[in-house]
Amino acid sequence: MIRGLLSVLFVLVTVAVSSSLAKPEKNIAKRGKRIPQTLSRGWGDQLIWAQTYEEALYWARAQNKPLMVIFHLEDCPHSSSMKKAFAEDKDIQKVLNEDFIILNLVYETTDKHLSPDGQYVPRIIFVDPSMTVRADITGRYSNRMYAYEPSDTQLLLSNMQKAKKLLKSEL
Amino acid sequence: MIRGLLSVLFVLVTVAVSSSLAKPEKNIAKRGKRIPQTLSRGWGDQLIWAQTYEEALYWARAQNKPLMVIFHLEDCPHSSSMKKAFAEDKDIQKVLNEDFIILNLVYETTDKHLSPDGQYVPRIIFVDPSMTVRADITGRYSNRMYAYEPSDTQLLLSNMQKAKKLLKSEL
Repeated sequence: MIRGLLSVLFVLVTVAVSSSLAKPEKNIAKRGKRIPQTLSRGWGDQLIWAQTYEEALYWARAQNKPLMVIFHLEDCPHSSSMKKAFAEDKDIQKVLNEDFIILNLVYETTDKHLSPDGQYVPRIIFVDPSMTVRADITGRYSNRMYAYEPSDTQLLLSNMQKAKKLLKSEL
Repeated sequence: MIRGLLSVLFVLVTVAVSSSLAKPEKNIAKRGKRIPQTLSRGWGDQLIWAQTYEEALYWARAQNKPLMVIFHLEDCPHSSSMKKAFAEDKDIQKVLNEDFIILNLVYETTDKHLSPDGQYVPRIIFVDPSMTVRADITGRYSNRMYAYEPSDTQLLLSNMQKAKKLLKSEL
């Protein structure tokens, strides 16, 4: 029975997980068949999503594509309205499909670089295939620099174009 | 732009990811609609799956339930045959539904404790809600101690009963 790293991880997880997160039980139908959970969680059912941050980083490097990480919560109205605008925006979906590795998470990772100014939702963070978090690619809100609202889809699209200009093209 | 922990993570990811892993492109239908990816990946569509290890650890602690982590690969025939037996075993599915937090991963995590004797697939690792990997709960193969075959479902069920006896019931 091994502890060690796990205990470190535990501290990080405890810090990372807010008590406001949705309980998985809420997805359980009391009777009848459950609808299988999807990796897209409604952010683009036709896109290919990575399951974990490790997987996403691997594919970003292997395919030399930028990674978009979306942090959201199922019960958060801001997340829901942004998700709707995001999923319905054909330009965003097209560029993601062709040029990005994508990941959406309802739990924080243990990597603090993914929360440059806090762990609010929704927030969208870009990571270069050189494994550098693009903290320079921000939305329009100075108190929550990585937040986007439904009216910000054009800004998000332009930020996606920025993220496509890789930091180190030789990698 | 932040590096630091990411570079450490990169080394771990590079070590962790085998070149034999299935490419996500294989899931892409050339035309027509894609079937949304599921979190169950066929291991139990009616169960509630955690998406990431961080999420799974959080729920194991919060609900004081043991965690089962299944490592597998979509293209691996051993994984596929074990998955079929696992998904069709009503006793396993029932106990998982009631008493376990569950996670299935096609990528390794950065936590080496989840690979006590290597990163082969399929392998099934139990984690106590006290965050201790139950390296003592093993299958019947001495060279791959956490591997199970379709004929091992009874052993797996008995190991699940072992995992349900929590290490620290006061937690």
